[in-house]
Amino acid sequence: MNQLPNALQFSHLLLKEAVSTGDQVIDGTIGNGNDTLLLAKLVGENGTVYGFDIQQQALQHTISLLEKNLSGLQNVQLYKKSHAEIDNVLDNNVRISAAIFNLGYLPGGDKSIITKSTSTLTALTTCLKKLQVGGLVVIVVYYGHPGGKKEEESVVDFCQNLPQKNFAVLNYSFVNQAHEPPFVLAIQKLK
Amino acid sequence: MNQLPNALQFSHLLLKEAVSTGDQVIDGTIGNGNDTLLLAKLVGENGTVYGFDIQQQALQHTISLLEKNLSGLQNVQLYKKSHAEIDNVLDNNVRISAAIFNLGYLPGGDKSIITKSTSTLTALTTCLKKLQVGGLVVIVVYYGHPGGKKEEESVVDFCQNLPQKNFAVLNYSFVNQAHEPPFVLAIQKLK
Repeated sequence: MNQLPNALQFSHLLLKEAVSTGDQVIDGTIGNGNDTLLLAKLVGENGTVYGFDIQQQALQHTISLLEKNLSGLQNVQLYKKSHAEIDNVLDNNVRISAAIFNLGYLPGGDKSIITKSTSTLTALTTCLKKLQVGGLVVIVVYYGHPGGKKEEESVVDFCQNLPQKNFAVLNYSFVNQAHEPPFVLAIQKLK
Repeated sequence: MNQLPNALQFSHLLLKEAVSTGDQVIDGTIGNGNDTLLLAKLVGENGTVYGFDIQQQALQHTISLLEKNLSGLQNVQLYKKSHAEIDNVLDNNVRISAAIFNLGYLPGGDKSIITKSTSTLTALTTCLKKLQVGGLVVIVVYYGHPGGKKEEESVVDFCQNLPQKNFAVLNYSFVNQAHEPPFVLAIQKLK
């Protein structure tokens, strides 16, 4: 058989399961735009992807990637803002089928600019509030970089303490690797 | 979307990926025979399922389940023996695409008869030796019962220490549940 999906591949498998044509979804860390592109294809022209990143470089990469691969950006709304501001930016009645976060730094960018616990937990809380029943918040946790371990602990702690009546939290990780590979946390809203 | 697969469902998804018609595979803990039946269907009449259990009740349930659901038992060889004896029972040149273990006690059986670290690790070692490149050893770890936690720790420790050049070890678990649900460890042979 093929190799077991790595964390990034598994996060995409989950998004493909969770997202349908016409859905509204959030990319909390657009980075180089790979998740944004996948989500834009999944929601189609009648859906909406809301994308957030604080770095101009991330927005430029993403716009360029989307222009190359889609006929236009009509179903993607990008914000040069922290994901901590999702709740301020989006209309109160927006309901999402999925959100994706890739924690850490922008690949190829300034490694000192990293996602941090406080804003990440604020963003996760907003996404869970906006999540439809059955929907998923998917987090790819990179933690090998300076500051990464602290954020990882906060996020894992946050997830472990979500009430099991309302949420199921899956941890998908490779456990015999010396180089601290990313792992996936997937939060499904049960009711 | 549907609920995320639980541990048992995920173990079956992995077996369906790993096993093809004509393969040889091992069920290290046949229990009530559900995994044995799945494996028998996956390998077909030209493959072989080798099944192990120390309890007569497990063999009886399994034979009855297989007779009800298959035209015969021609591709299943059941042994009333500990999985620690796999290496003594099977021919040296048997190569498998998959093995499955459900650790703990026999559902509906005597809860004081449980799988134990020493024999489990012996069995896992044999299965890894017989595993083809790309193949999977899948372990569903139940640990909520008396003695379960000790075995869980041994098995997790064994898996975490497998050399990453030769094996990838995936841990699939739900992390916000109070009732200690089972989790999956899946070991893939890389070379």
